[in-house]
Amino acid sequence: MTFENFIDTRKYTERLCERLETEDFVVQAVEEVSPAKWHLAHTTWFFETFLLKPHLSTYREFHPRYSYLFNSYYNAVGSRTHRFHRGLMTRPPVAEVMAYREYVNQEMGILLSKRMTEEVTLLLELGINHEQQHQELLITDLKYNLSLNPLHPEVLDIAEYPKRGETGWESIDEGIYEVGHQGKKFSYDNEHGRHKVFLEAFNISRALVTNGEFEEFIRAGGYQNVDLWHSDGWEWVTKNELKRPLYWQESGQGFKYYTLEGMKVVDPGAPVAHVSFYEAAAYAEWVGCRLPTEFQWEVASSRFDWGQRWEWTNSAYLPYPRYQKAPGAIGEYNGKFMINQMVLRGASVATPDGHSRHTYRNFFPPQSAWQFSGIRLVK
Amino acid sequence: MTFENFIDTRKYTERLCERLETEDFVVQAVEEVSPAKWHLAHTTWFFETFLLKPHLSTYREFHPRYSYLFNSYYNAVGSRTHRFHRGLMTRPPVAEVMAYREYVNQEMGILLSKRMTEEVTLLLELGINHEQQHQELLITDLKYNLSLNPLHPEVLDIAEYPKRGETGWESIDEGIYEVGHQGKKFSYDNEHGRHKVFLEAFNISRALVTNGEFEEFIRAGGYQNVDLWHSDGWEWVTKNELKRPLYWQESGQGFKYYTLEGMKVVDPGAPVAHVSFYEAAAYAEWVGCRLPTEFQWEVASSRFDWGQRWEWTNSAYLPYPRYQKAPGAIGEYNGKFMINQMVLRGASVATPDGHSRHTYRNFFPPQSAWQFSGIRLVK
Amino acid sequence: MTFENFIDTRKYTERLCERLETEDFVVQAVEEVSPAKWHLAHTTWFFETFLLKPHLSTYREFHPRYSYLFNSYYNAVGSRTHRFHRGLMTRPPVAEVMAYREYVNQEMGILLSKRMTEEVTLLLELGINHEQQHQELLITDLKYNLSLNPLHPEVLDIAEYPKRGETGWESIDEGIYEVGHQGKKFSYDNEHGRHKVFLEAFNISRALVTNGEFEEFIRAGGYQNVDLWHSDGWEWVTKNELKRPLYWQESGQGFKYYTLEGMKVVDPGAPVAHVSFYEAAAYAEWVGCRLPTEFQWEVASSRFDWGQRWEWTNSAYLPYPRYQKAPGAIGEYNGKFMINQMVLRGASVATPDGHSRHTYRNFFPPQSAWQFSGIRLVK
Amino acid sequence: MTFENFIDTRKYTERLCERLETEDFVVQAVEEVSPAKWHLAHTTWFFETFLLKPHLSTYREFHPRYSYLFNSYYNAVGSRTHRFHRGLMTRPPVAEVMAYREYVNQEMGILLSKRMTEEVTLLLELGINHEQQHQELLITDLKYNLSLNPLHPEVLDIAEYPKRGETGWESIDEGIYEVGHQGKKFSYDNEHGRHKVFLEAFNISRALVTNGEFEEFIRAGGYQNVDLWHSDGWEWVTKNELKRPLYWQESGQGFKYYTLEGMKVVDPGAPVAHVSFYEAAAYAEWVGCRLPTEFQWEVASSRFDWGQRWEWTNSAYLPYPRYQKAPGAIGEYNGKFMINQMVLRGASVATPDGHSRHTYRNFFPPQSAWQFSGIRLVK
Repeated sequence: MTFENFIDTRKYTERLCERLETEDFVVQAVEEVSPAKWHLAHTTWFFETFLLKPHLSTYREFHPRYSYLFNSYYNAVGSRTHRFHRGLMTRPPVAEVMAYREYVNQEMGILLSKRMTEEVTLLLELGINHEQQHQELLITDLKYNLSLNPLHPEVLDIAEYPKRGETGWESIDEGIYEVGHQGKKFSYDNEHGRHKVFLEAFNISRALVTNGEFEEFIRAGGYQNVDLWHSDGWEWVTKNELKRPLYWQESGQGFKYYTLEGMKVVDPGAPVAHVSFYEAAAYAEWVGCRLPTEFQWEVASSRFDWGQRWEWTNSAYLPYPRYQKAPGAIGEYNGKFMINQMVLRGASVATPDGHSRHTYRNFFPPQSAWQFSGIRLVK
Repeated sequence: MTFENFIDTRKYTERLCERLETEDFVVQAVEEVSPAKWHLAHTTWFFETFLLKPHLSTYREFHPRYSYLFNSYYNAVGSRTHRFHRGLMTRPPVAEVMAYREYVNQEMGILLSKRMTEEVTLLLELGINHEQQHQELLITDLKYNLSLNPLHPEVLDIAEYPKRGETGWESIDEGIYEVGHQGKKFSYDNEHGRHKVFLEAFNISRALVTNGEFEEFIRAGGYQNVDLWHSDGWEWVTKNELKRPLYWQESGQGFKYYTLEGMKVVDPGAPVAHVSFYEAAAYAEWVGCRLPTEFQWEVASSRFDWGQRWEWTNSAYLPYPRYQKAPGAIGEYNGKFMINQMVLRGASVATPDGHSRHTYRNFFPPQSAWQFSGIRLVK
Repeated sequence: MTFENFIDTRKYTERLCERLETEDFVVQAVEEVSPAKWHLAHTTWFFETFLLKPHLSTYREFHPRYSYLFNSYYNAVGSRTHRFHRGLMTRPPVAEVMAYREYVNQEMGILLSKRMTEEVTLLLELGINHEQQHQELLITDLKYNLSLNPLHPEVLDIAEYPKRGETGWESIDEGIYEVGHQGKKFSYDNEHGRHKVFLEAFNISRALVTNGEFEEFIRAGGYQNVDLWHSDGWEWVTKNELKRPLYWQESGQGFKYYTLEGMKVVDPGAPVAHVSFYEAAAYAEWVGCRLPTEFQWEVASSRFDWGQRWEWTNSAYLPYPRYQKAPGAIGEYNGKFMINQMVLRGASVATPDGHSRHTYRNFFPPQSAWQFSGIRLVK
Repeated sequence: MTFENFIDTRKYTERLCERLETEDFVVQAVEEVSPAKWHLAHTTWFFETFLLKPHLSTYREFHPRYSYLFNSYYNAVGSRTHRFHRGLMTRPPVAEVMAYREYVNQEMGILLSKRMTEEVTLLLELGINHEQQHQELLITDLKYNLSLNPLHPEVLDIAEYPKRGETGWESIDEGIYEVGHQGKKFSYDNEHGRHKVFLEAFNISRALVTNGEFEEFIRAGGYQNVDLWHSDGWEWVTKNELKRPLYWQESGQGFKYYTLEGMKVVDPGAPVAHVSFYEAAAYAEWVGCRLPTEFQWEVASSRFDWGQRWEWTNSAYLPYPRYQKAPGAIGEYNGKFMINQMVLRGASVATPDGHSRHTYRNFFPPQSAWQFSGIRLVK
């Protein structure tokens, strides 16, 4: 990792915001999403806190209150309220956050030209990966926040709905397999602890489920058929009166959906996105299949294309054998979320280049749908 | 009412926003407040809808979606959700709303130079009064929204806490009095129907209760003494763990409060503000007095100074004899709110010049405290 | 007031429960209603606490925990939770509560045979009136609790839906009238402070609105027409998806309703019951009338029959001039509720004989409908 | 399975209720628990619905509405409300439910004397196991419902807090193990699909964590130390202001807890009960251990005593390979709950004799604590 990698990452974050109005940076529609401004500042705070302050003796803090405002580690009572308040913080203005980014970039240049120790290199890599994670959230949070606007803002051209690839099934034999990260390249603590698992034989689909296939499920009454759903999923569907995936709208002729390039007619050949675990599992039940476990997915992943959608697995997010939380704030990230969440594998059209690997364990609660999440089947 | 009056009002609204950052225009912290941008647009929509569209044949709508976005008459199911979404509408941006204002101003110039009929004159007066009401809300909503920001933005210099005037009591004799608006000058439908009321003799304080007096109530345990509170008031206090008025903070030496000029030490000689009806009534109970009824207030109002604080009365907001809702959307405003609200009389430091009269009936639910609301006593 | 009056009142309470199963005494469906067992015990606790303990030196408490369990004066934090827990208190069993009643009755006999002082006489009268109030609540709470049971229990024969009387309008002249209680007979503190009011001339209907008339309102789309409702009333209707009064069900041929004698076909000639203030006001709006103020009602009450329904007025529940809370727990009752409630005048088919007078001020929040509440009109 | 087994099971259910007052059968304090009366009726409904109606042609339904009232399969919208309404159903009275039980028992005698086909035998076994499950819930639900009563009812003598056994650690070697039910004896569908798992070597404690050990955690500030808790667990602790396990109270000298034999001083040598998964996991974190996975537990279970507490595992409740939902209502039970729940293994002091096996998969949401749930550790 070099200063050039660092600057590339930083600039890419800003490029994602090029077409935003100042106002677009501020809002937060629900607790799970954050304002664009917060992502810009928080990723900067990370470099300031974990690299500049401890490792660059000449560094002077940009603003005394930013550490409080842009820290995401909310352990104290009342933190949830606080988190939802992100969207009410009109100050500092966007221009000042951009100045903060620039200031930290320059100071990082000084640090990296001077003290490229092993620890600094590791923290730099972590900081870059952290910012990459937030790039993806920046995109999905923007989409959620802007989707509520009746003017349907057009702010970013990513090919949200590419064509899916080859179809058919891959067969995997019964056996003992090794899973988990190995090697020196960057990875998170939750994928460490490479270990053996025993898998029975299974078949896994080469392609993701498409919009068109999911439309059949809708038209066959999938959202009205309790037998297809988990008990909690059914409660979620009925309480929210759901009849189609997030961002879909019924129009005169079929479905439309909101994308960051504006409203579009649903493309039947593209992989379905923005389904929750509950919807993915109900669809799998309807076609007489299952979702893969995360180990089935990992073992089979070299046999199919992936990277368009985060793929819901039927594995709960739990620690690997020998998993240990890293000490301190950096280590806090993963372990404490290992309950009430399901694992997603793969990557999506919003994942930045170079930020994906087949051992990566993403995770969200089963009702989450604002990520580009899709469906692969096993039988 | 002339075009000059119109332009003066319009420009005053904009002057209130001069020191705001673009970001400050967007947010909405709770359902009861609105974003500054919304106030700017909604008051403009009023002139467009009720004057330009029906009375200026050459008028062309500024934008086809604005009528939907900036209408406040939410009668349909689900309107509340909608109202809270005001703070999520990043588009149109502030600059475009300002262009909308300018466009409507120019078209109004055309209309008023051509067709100053009696109906147009009445609607113009109504529109100006409507915008004046929103000027006050713009100030109080801004205060609420910005008060949550740890950076304590300083955006407007109004003397929020002036000195209070002369003290002592005025005596009013028993008798039949007339209340309600009379004359040709502008007034709202809720103050119409001048009528007789019988009042027993009473004494009313010349001055408002001060911060210093209210601090005594706090220090005497007023917020912990159930006997002083209405049953619903006590529930409100305990549920929200209240110990002092809105915007007050405990500091090392006494209290500070947030103002639109930043954080300040509480001024003991200024009239208390931002108390709810519950707090006003509990204070009155504590000193062995009562709040005036709205008729006591109106009858006695020529005997004392008023205009610094909206003054809570012990009158529920109910129709006067012979009250009738005006037909259509304009008439919808007052009558439908005549339940679960208490009347406030007077005016406040945020009320624009010329927008107050002693028959004016303001009203809010008893827990509301974000207006500059204060306390006058009777005994 | 004599021991005989006391015993008559006590026995009447028990007669109301004669046809209940033990299980029926226990439950509490919503916070506003109480279990029958609680009413039986709480009224007994009143005599124990305010008469026996302070005035009968030989009295020995029946059970040390009952004072805590059957006290309704909940001033402490968390009281609401407590109130809802009434319906979870399986112990003491009903039989023991009956023994408690009998024990207190006997001790009251001793007290009244010995020390019929003026204070004891006043407290006896208060206790009897208190128990009479709870007799009415016992009936209405039972109705609510049992109405949820698919087996439609039949437990009490009162003529819930009598024929209404004479129709037409009474004219009342403009003038100064006196309102409020006078004389020596029992009354509550909230009706004290007889005072003058000025009323404009009005007409008041001799008869209450009937079920049949209210059905017309339903069939004319009254529950779907926002223009007829208060803003809060419309929210209440839409949130609860209301389409008819409480206890009404749509059946194949018209409406049925649950009564304490079981399910019955709606009687079109009987006065409508179980409407909220919101429904009463919307109905009045629909027919181009108003609800009377409590003073219009009181002044005109000698000109029409009343007593079948509590009649919603358009007066908020507020203190009369010179109203003062009585000191201590007994005085706590009325004053603290003087916010967010509307006055009802009259009496209902559930009101015990002798417990009604034309100055009586009943009060409930505007959404309440489980009392036998009806509609009279003015124009 | 014979008629004698059937009758033994039925009588045992009733013996559990011998010391209850009629009132105790009715209430339901929270949605997750059911009234005793409902358990008595629902288990009877099971035999009526799945055995008598389809297999005994002479059978006549006891009551036409019971099928609706005592069915637990709530798939329709609004079911949750319905479930909470169980505690409001005063009718049918307890005596009638007992008559229903007796009637069904007699009819079962007729059926079993006539047509002991293989299908009937299997359904009989299922019905007996179903009633045994409800026996345990009857006990734990009663405890929860009665625990809220200030009179601390004493209704059942089971040794809730026995002495724990031998301490120390058992070592299990790395290897491939088989898990899941095998053989002909009764089991549920969720434990079927015997399959291989690969386990790394681990050590598991022979004894359960005691009250005394858990008290040390409390006194060391365990409930105040965010680092020990899952993110969702910490939110649960702070929102509910938890400081000790369910049923524990602080007394002058240490802790007391409510048991079905009344209030008792906490026994430091007995295994802790009524801890949630969150508390179990926080305790394990505090002592530097982990909770076992369900497969570690199953593989090691022959090496230690179990049966006093349901033991939280760190396994989410997910389907085994080849798991398939049984068709129809009987099959609905398990699969639809396979999300947002954690597996508990073992059995408890409330589990009826013969209703436990080492492959049994119990499951509850991570915040559940009203079962006799405890803690075993691995390292």
